[in-house]
Amino acid sequence: MPKVKFCLDEESKEIEVKTGVTLLEAAAKAEIRLNSICGGDGICAGCKVKVTKGEVKAEPTILLSREEVKGGYVLACQTKVVEQLEVEVPPESRAEEGQILIDEDAQRFKALTAGEQSYKHEPLVKKRFFQLPSPNLQDNLADHQRLYREIRRKEEVPTMQMGLKVLSNIQNLLRNNNWGVTVTLGRRGGTTEVIQLEDGNRTTQNYGVAIDIGTTTVVAHLVDLSNGNTLGAEARYNSQIEHGEEVTRRIIYSDQTGIEKLQEVIIEDINKLISTLVSQNQLELEHLTTVICSGNTTMLHFLLGLDPTHIRKDPYVPLSTNPPPIRAAEVGIRINPRGLLYSMPSIGGWVGGDITAGVLASGIHRRDDLTMLIDIGTNGEILVGNKEWMLSASASAGPAFEGTGARSGMRASKGAIERVEITDDDLRYSVIGGGKPKGICGSGLIDLVAELFKVGFINRTGKLDTERSTRVQETGVGAQFVVVTADESRTGEDIVITQPDIENLIRAKAAIYAGAHILMQRLNLDFDKLDHLLIAGGFGAYIDRESARILGLIPDIPLSKVQFIGNTSIIGTKMALLSHQALKEANEISQSVTYYDLINYPNYFDEFTRAKFLPHTDLDKFPTVTSEIHNRKHQ
Amino acid sequence: MPKVKFCLDEESKEIEVKTGVTLLEAAAKAEIRLNSICGGDGICAGCKVKVTKGEVKAEPTILLSREEVKGGYVLACQTKVVEQLEVEVPPESRAEEGQILIDEDAQRFKALTAGEQSYKHEPLVKKRFFQLPSPNLQDNLADHQRLYREIRRKEEVPTMQMGLKVLSNIQNLLRNNNWGVTVTLGRRGGTTEVIQLEDGNRTTQNYGVAIDIGTTTVVAHLVDLSNGNTLGAEARYNSQIEHGEEVTRRIIYSDQTGIEKLQEVIIEDINKLISTLVSQNQLELEHLTTVICSGNTTMLHFLLGLDPTHIRKDPYVPLSTNPPPIRAAEVGIRINPRGLLYSMPSIGGWVGGDITAGVLASGIHRRDDLTMLIDIGTNGEILVGNKEWMLSASASAGPAFEGTGARSGMRASKGAIERVEITDDDLRYSVIGGGKPKGICGSGLIDLVAELFKVGFINRTGKLDTERSTRVQETGVGAQFVVVTADESRTGEDIVITQPDIENLIRAKAAIYAGAHILMQRLNLDFDKLDHLLIAGGFGAYIDRESARILGLIPDIPLSKVQFIGNTSIIGTKMALLSHQALKEANEISQSVTYYDLINYPNYFDEFTRAKFLPHTDLDKFPTVTSEIHNRKHQ
Repeated sequence: MPKVKFCLDEESKEIEVKTGVTLLEAAAKAEIRLNSICGGDGICAGCKVKVTKGEVKAEPTILLSREEVKGGYVLACQTKVVEQLEVEVPPESRAEEGQILIDEDAQRFKALTAGEQSYKHEPLVKKRFFQLPSPNLQDNLADHQRLYREIRRKEEVPTMQMGLKVLSNIQNLLRNNNWGVTVTLGRRGGTTEVIQLEDGNRTTQNYGVAIDIGTTTVVAHLVDLSNGNTLGAEARYNSQIEHGEEVTRRIIYSDQTGIEKLQEVIIEDINKLISTLVSQNQLELEHLTTVICSGNTTMLHFLLGLDPTHIRKDPYVPLSTNPPPIRAAEVGIRINPRGLLYSMPSIGGWVGGDITAGVLASGIHRRDDLTMLIDIGTNGEILVGNKEWMLSASASAGPAFEGTGARSGMRASKGAIERVEITDDDLRYSVIGGGKPKGICGSGLIDLVAELFKVGFINRTGKLDTERSTRVQETGVGAQFVVVTADESRTGEDIVITQPDIENLIRAKAAIYAGAHILMQRLNLDFDKLDHLLIAGGFGAYIDRESARILGLIPDIPLSKVQFIGNTSIIGTKMALLSHQALKEANEISQSVTYYDLINYPNYFDEFTRAKFLPHTDLDKFPTVTSEIHNRKHQ
Repeated sequence: MPKVKFCLDEESKEIEVKTGVTLLEAAAKAEIRLNSICGGDGICAGCKVKVTKGEVKAEPTILLSREEVKGGYVLACQTKVVEQLEVEVPPESRAEEGQILIDEDAQRFKALTAGEQSYKHEPLVKKRFFQLPSPNLQDNLADHQRLYREIRRKEEVPTMQMGLKVLSNIQNLLRNNNWGVTVTLGRRGGTTEVIQLEDGNRTTQNYGVAIDIGTTTVVAHLVDLSNGNTLGAEARYNSQIEHGEEVTRRIIYSDQTGIEKLQEVIIEDINKLISTLVSQNQLELEHLTTVICSGNTTMLHFLLGLDPTHIRKDPYVPLSTNPPPIRAAEVGIRINPRGLLYSMPSIGGWVGGDITAGVLASGIHRRDDLTMLIDIGTNGEILVGNKEWMLSASASAGPAFEGTGARSGMRASKGAIERVEITDDDLRYSVIGGGKPKGICGSGLIDLVAELFKVGFINRTGKLDTERSTRVQETGVGAQFVVVTADESRTGEDIVITQPDIENLIRAKAAIYAGAHILMQRLNLDFDKLDHLLIAGGFGAYIDRESARILGLIPDIPLSKVQFIGNTSIIGTKMALLSHQALKEANEISQSVTYYDLINYPNYFDEFTRAKFLPHTDLDKFPTVTSEIHNRKHQ
């Protein structure tokens, strides 16, 4: 086996690998984590390395310049080891542990919008410094109008508003600061509000937080609004979980006991996330001027204390799909007291602002070709369309893919098993952030079930075969498969997947597949008419497309058409935070998507039942998977 | 002497008059008060009567239709008695006592805009009833967006805003009222705010108050916003007077002790006026959705608690000439808690929203011909221009013309002497509302000084001649002229004008004349180039143009060019209250008028000093007055 020596800044690591493995896989074996946002698709260029000794077999790529290629640079994921090598790893290609969430999103975003027209950097709330001409007898315009005149000279603001409290401060501020003033301008629909006036030039003291309120997980990104840089990312479970794991249960809870409790709980989660981000970055809360939240429609109702009752009652009418921006303080979010809270506009009662953000991030609404977006969270939303039309639906998947539904499940954070590979006599896995594992996140669970099926440890209904492996154990409450034994885990307990876990996952994937199937049926199109299938979700690094296909979570189409694009909700939301044009476009998206209600579709339950096999009842729908499994059995 | 019999609805009154008196004068003698907003100029058509028996000598008029002329209708002010008559007085021509303020303004407004395009009735805050289609599976738009869709179908609202409190109420309101809802829409600059939602159809429960905050007098009109009708008018002194009679003194006071006290006091005045109007009309405060205030720039600063300090310091810069609409409750005005408070935009530090309103009301900004507007209050503002350009200035007149500066002075309200006529051996006067007099208002004082001068009781410096009349008395503190003796007055005290009163009035008129003179000088124009001279102010029924000219308050130009147009501040403000187009035009006016600062004009003091004679030092400037006085002396 050839040896590969990786040279890092201050150290080098050498490892033996099989011929034909990619440099990305080799690096992972050497416990060197490279950026691989695209999941090894060769489109993000995050894993660029330099081969300094030896020959490699590299796929051609347009992501490297002629100079780079001449200099020996390759994309690690697109390059196979054929002989002994020395490889230099540039620092920017290494995924830093604490930076996982951010780098991935940032680079994924870069990959997604590559070649597309990006949105103008013009944050929803921006700070601008204006040096006003001091008044004289020939020009003795009032302070207020003098400021407006200057703003209008420099900025495009058709209509402006200013509250009395801000206005009453203007006189002394201008005179004490030699007529120089920093103005915080906040977009409120078609109007721009002068939110605050500050002495001197404070334009760099402007930060915002983009938040994705998942039913299970809440993710927050801290952004420097002056330059668009993401400074940090944090995630935590949605504390509403104790009042119901699924959306419907929480609506029932709020219907019975009032919305206040659920609102209070999510606001507290948000405040904790913000507080952590702010202290990590040594910022002051008053410099945070903006919070923008996406999430499903019900989560966005709870955020604002709006009653979601009718979302679950025929004809499923939300109170609002596009609530107005308000002061964040009005719902108890602790940032600058005059800072604004925005919501990403939702499409309907069961397709929320997270999907609008996903469309925005992936640019489906600007494309000619036909794209399907599947966002896998506690609900599975499916959207299909192009720049002419878009159709969407929602399938109740439950939290299986977010980890919380499974015995050893966990959120995609440090210590989570995110990849699994099983052979008859071996099991390999990789852990987010390296080290001993604590549990399994969504992408790990998908891999796990797919691998179990591939090697025949489970059958097409997902039933564990206790005969096939010592890892399959019978317990008092059913069978389970041991992924990591207690002595190798960080928790000191076995990391397992149980029979009910597997069944949950199959039910979840069946719900999503059935939804996607029905949407295509409505369009009278087969899946092979799709030009792209995008999978979104907060799974960790990425979801393995092949595992997803083996599971039957996604249809059997060429994997080259399938792309994992991560948490597009947070990416799209951050785009809106940084550009009011993007938010405006999000509004247009939310109004133009047709929402299709699965619950009332007569065939939905049948389709769901048929999809509750691996990969599906109808194997003709999955020829590739079928032949692969068949070949494997006869290897 | 011919007899005239006036036939009213339920009674008739007969009176003997001299040949040649007008029917208006005859009616007054019979104690029948006819509308005469234009002061007998024959332009308001308020005094229309029908001659049923006898011949009259009537001036031709275009204000009566051919049918009316055939039917015997005449304008009482343009018709002279030559023989015995019977005259029918239609009810609409009678000025009701309690209705003086309103009718005058309403009819004056009618006269002013006669033939001009009036503004579309679209109040700043309007109520509209919408019957929404109830949702179904094919149309399950969210409540919020469903309402917006309906509003946009019926109304032109480019951008809309809605607060969270209003929004959170929408769900139950719509469902409990069969999807019918009354929406209160308030204009905030270029945006429309959904201020409140109410059950059922409440469109007629929408009232507003237009307020003119004079330095001395505060006037409030209550308006039914659903149809534009004025329901009542009230006036009271500005309680800030105890902290300074003039604007400058109040600014100094606020500079020393804070703005809060002056704000508190004016808000209390406004609340009292509103409370009186509301209880007179048996309304509920929550149905008042709008308050709009005009006044000079400093008064509008105090209203909002904005610091006016720099208005009196070179280069005279206000804090704001166009403060934003706010919730009236924010400054303590008690109407609907979500109702809005608007300010009329000001032109500069010393030419306020009252003048903008005056221009709006009189339409100077739309006219081709050259018009001068003199607004006589505690300050005298002068504006001259046409639709191409406008120039304005302010002269510090003091409260002389508002009555408060004079010993027996009073506001133009019931019991005030508003007209005075003196002959060598007789003195006649008329009292607002009839009955015994309590004091003298501005128009009465102007008449009085002019008459005293005409009959020679005062000389050109205003000095009382104790030799000429028993009414001129010497007191310990100087001479005075007794207008009404104690036994004839309602107060039981003599109603007098003192030597200092006269000197005050002369100073005040000199300040205004000098200002007008300098503006014309700057334009290189003589007064005779003026096509119109409009005199505005809250004097009572009207100011006698001839008296004003004798005084030298206005230049010596043909009286046909001079028109008294009353309190244009309240008229224009009411126009804005009733039409956001009018407010928009007021904004444009306020920005297009050039403000000319008299204080820094080197010749101002000289011009002022020259004008401190009756009518002026330079008699050549007043040929008509001079010849009249001359003729009188030699009669």
